[in-house]
Amino acid sequence: MTTTYIVRTEDRPGVLTRVTEVFRRRAFNIESLTVGHTETPGVSRMTIVVDTDEDAARRMEAHLYKLVNVLHVDTVTEQPSVFRDLAMIKVAATAETRSQIMQLVEVFRARVIDVSPASMVIEITGTEDKIDGFVEVLRPFTVLEMARTGRLAMRRGFVEAAQDATDEVAA
Amino acid sequence: MTTTYIVRTEDRPGVLTRVTEVFRRRAFNIESLTVGHTETPGVSRMTIVVDTDEDAARRMEAHLYKLVNVLHVDTVTEQPSVFRDLAMIKVAATAETRSQIMQLVEVFRARVIDVSPASMVIEITGTEDKIDGFVEVLRPFTVLEMARTGRLAMRRGFVEAAQDATDEVAA
Repeated sequence: MTTTYIVRTEDRPGVLTRVTEVFRRRAFNIESLTVGHTETPGVSRMTIVVDTDEDAARRMEAHLYKLVNVLHVDTVTEQPSVFRDLAMIKVAATAETRSQIMQLVEVFRARVIDVSPASMVIEITGTEDKIDGFVEVLRPFTVLEMARTGRLAMRRGFVEAAQDATDEVAA
Repeated sequence: MTTTYIVRTEDRPGVLTRVTEVFRRRAFNIESLTVGHTETPGVSRMTIVVDTDEDAARRMEAHLYKLVNVLHVDTVTEQPSVFRDLAMIKVAATAETRSQIMQLVEVFRARVIDVSPASMVIEITGTEDKIDGFVEVLRPFTVLEMARTGRLAMRRGFVEAAQDATDEVAA
């Protein structure tokens, strides 16, 4: 089972190491992790995706709360949420194949962000499945390089608990 | 000075902790980090952004190479590269304000990915500056929640070294 955690932390050195260490010590393999800024200065937000069973997932939430600088933990797997992944894909492209690739870019609502004489860089956002599908159709043209952010998750509607935890820090 | 590292590693438990630990021990503050899959099964790719001077940045590259499971390190700051960030922004939206927000979404080439009675979730990709600008114009409508992936980076054109390192693992 894939579990997605949203962890809000204070933006202090060492927080990221402490969080990844909790997962490592319990032998959870992190499938993807992103950490970036939030709407509140001084607060970072991590989205962490792991493969684990339900029981272990619930215990992990408690372990995370015990860490210094962790403000709020949300397990979004079962709740109605929106998920997004960003990928940058560099694909080999000659004068002949470029227009074929552009057509696929349009179908997938992706975007070309760079063109060089022998290659193109394309950005695409969407669920993991959609991006996997796009990579599959590009493969015949030769995928030279791919970078993915891993999953970003957000609950639908308004989340009070996270908001409260963040307000406390901002105050 | 902001330095961006692209680190390719084997996809093994504990790699992420070892990498973040190297930065923590040398008191580098990680501004953003993303780790996700690549075009090669078994190989992960991290994009790490830190604020540091040129000398320390160069030494860090050497420290990273010494780690087990690290395949290739690339410092992309000065090279011609493309940078992208993904943000999901939840903004308060009523029947009256919704169309105003939609206009801004169009101007910034962002996308609405979810609508609930009192809010909307918008996705936007671009450089950090562009996303900061978008958040700024949304602020009067009340930004309820924001998640950002942090920077994803890719060199323009074809990079042989990274390709070689990856091929070795795939072989």
